[in-house]
Amino acid sequence: MHTKIGVVDTTFARADMGGFALDELRRNASVSAERATVPGLKDLPVASKKLIEEGHCSLVIACGMVGPKPVDKDSARIASQALQQVQLMTNTHILEVFVHEDEAEDERELAWLLEQRTREHARNAVLLLLRPQKLEALAGTGQRQGFADAGPARW
Amino acid sequence: MHTKIGVVDTTFARADMGGFALDELRRNASVSAERATVPGLKDLPVASKKLIEEGHCSLVIACGMVGPKPVDKDSARIASQALQQVQLMTNTHILEVFVHEDEAEDERELAWLLEQRTREHARNAVLLLLRPQKLEALAGTGQRQGFADAGPARW
Amino acid sequence: MHTKIGVVDTTFARADMGGFALDELRRNASVSAERATVPGLKDLPVASKKLIEEGHCSLVIACGMVGPKPVDKDSARIASQALQQVQLMTNTHILEVFVHEDEAEDERELAWLLEQRTREHARNAVLLLLRPQKLEALAGTGQRQGFADAGPARW
Amino acid sequence: MHTKIGVVDTTFARADMGGFALDELRRNASVSAERATVPGLKDLPVASKKLIEEGHCSLVIACGMVGPKPVDKDSARIASQALQQVQLMTNTHILEVFVHEDEAEDERELAWLLEQRTREHARNAVLLLLRPQKLEALAGTGQRQGFADAGPARW
Amino acid sequence: MHTKIGVVDTTFARADMGGFALDELRRNASVSAERATVPGLKDLPVASKKLIEEGHCSLVIACGMVGPKPVDKDSARIASQALQQVQLMTNTHILEVFVHEDEAEDERELAWLLEQRTREHARNAVLLLLRPQKLEALAGTGQRQGFADAGPARW
Repeated sequence: MHTKIGVVDTTFARADMGGFALDELRRNASVSAERATVPGLKDLPVASKKLIEEGHCSLVIACGMVGPKPVDKDSARIASQALQQVQLMTNTHILEVFVHEDEAEDERELAWLLEQRTREHARNAVLLLLRPQKLEALAGTGQRQGFADAGPARW
Repeated sequence: MHTKIGVVDTTFARADMGGFALDELRRNASVSAERATVPGLKDLPVASKKLIEEGHCSLVIACGMVGPKPVDKDSARIASQALQQVQLMTNTHILEVFVHEDEAEDERELAWLLEQRTREHARNAVLLLLRPQKLEALAGTGQRQGFADAGPARW
Repeated sequence: MHTKIGVVDTTFARADMGGFALDELRRNASVSAERATVPGLKDLPVASKKLIEEGHCSLVIACGMVGPKPVDKDSARIASQALQQVQLMTNTHILEVFVHEDEAEDERELAWLLEQRTREHARNAVLLLLRPQKLEALAGTGQRQGFADAGPARW
Repeated sequence: MHTKIGVVDTTFARADMGGFALDELRRNASVSAERATVPGLKDLPVASKKLIEEGHCSLVIACGMVGPKPVDKDSARIASQALQQVQLMTNTHILEVFVHEDEAEDERELAWLLEQRTREHARNAVLLLLRPQKLEALAGTGQRQGFADAGPARW
Repeated sequence: MHTKIGVVDTTFARADMGGFALDELRRNASVSAERATVPGLKDLPVASKKLIEEGHCSLVIACGMVGPKPVDKDSARIASQALQQVQLMTNTHILEVFVHEDEAEDERELAWLLEQRTREHARNAVLLLLRPQKLEALAGTGQRQGFADAGPARW
């Protein structure tokens, strides 16, 4: 079967996360992709579900930036819970790419992080769908997306 | 197919959010609308579900004002989680328009914010349903509803 | 169709909330009612669902008092989330009447609040089921149940 | 129909809660019972669901002790949310008997509380299933399980 | 029926939790096993569901390490809630093996804890599936996985 990956992102984010995901997918695999852009974090879950059920995507990359206020953190938690539900309702993986605005020291680092984390998750999406044995080889090695890997715990 | 948008709001809010949404829809699109008013935030989810399933709405704008007490914040989180569930049960977008009373400096700003955010979400509703490519063009540009846009992160 | 309203309350509460609800319904509408009493807050959701599905109620008033400890606040949140789920599973409104013990200054005010808020929600139940246009007329007017109304935000 | 009550408890708890429940049921009613023991709090929900769906129990008493750390409190909340879901999926009451280790002053009081609260909930289970009118007579009287009753609010 | 246990772990963890689980299962029972490795905690629930529904596993051991930041704690809660949902959707036990990075004093202890807790949960998995009466004999005895057992409360 032809493999199609869904990409959903927001107008709220401060960099083109969906664009980074699509570019990275193109560089790493010959899969088709479908994109949807929604206003904010809480609009990602149903958009992801529609990409799976109506767009027939085999996996979705859900990209969002989380603002710095407590109410933004709440939105992230609520969106994330709903992204879990979509996965369980459809038996389909959704890779959640969330960048918290306050993870970055300044706007320059924020822009870098928004791109870097999205690209690394897009590569994970390819592994999960097409080369799962590569993920198994990395089990327990302290991988991170965005900042440096933690590595395995040293004895 | 004829497009119908649902609008649900509360008697708890301190301005006519449902009225603003209906007015803004009228100005921006030729869609029909159905309104329901409920007592408070926690009554919004089932009312939204009924507008979708019994009223055959293609999208719902769910408007609520969140009081300043911790118990009000809890209500917002619980209502929001349930609004997610409705979306996933119906594969239908619900735009959540929540204004926290303590976002505003005074009653004058509160009244302004209740109207402004509702109107901007109503315009997003039209884009999401009828002109999704316009949202894609705005991906990652730091849009906000109510207060000023954040804009993209500067390198 | 004959309209029947369910009333569920607890042995944990410190006043007869279910009794107040039934009395207020009797004064305001000619509907029949069915009551169930359960031990505590977390027993309300399934009892409400049974009143809807097995008792054929068109709406349920779920009454509970929330104790002052953090674990009591957790119970309220968990019960409330489940009351949302029941509403979405049945497309039926449940009016949640929760009074937090620490909202009141003393036992006298607590007793007053337990009665007053229950009665006002019971009147809302009647409006929601039988006179929804009355609720729409009150949209955005800052209604509260129990203590004084907030009123609309003043420009 | 023959009435069967399910009892589920954990190896994590520091007293034989399941045993107390079974003994108390035996003293108060002629019902049959089925027991399951699981490792911890988060294993209670699915075990309860299996007692209902596979063991044909009409009610379940789910017994757990909650440790004193924040992560233990999280486990209690998560298990409790899932116990709600089981009830709504099966239209069956589950009486949640949770004792927090830090409710007690010392191990002696802890052991007493683990037994006392379990026994009182077991008696509630019997009332809920077989004598619901007795619970209605106690509505709003401030009943507690374990420590002393609060009683009704005094005017 | 042939018994098959699923093991799912992450590339985020800092030791080979999935490997420990598989080794411990091999030592304690003649069951077959299927493994899946995913990027992080939030990918465990749908992977567990697929092992149950597509891989026909009778029980799943879900292994994850939780980072020290608040956002990591959120991920653990969200993954855990979803693991509950999977269990309820499938009537199948999932033993959640979560190690919080900040439970350990240093990397050496972390590595030890990641292995020890995983192995103890794997032994519980065998008891739950094949020797449930052994768990019942341990009811209320204060068992712990990883660090020392608490034991029963002393009178």
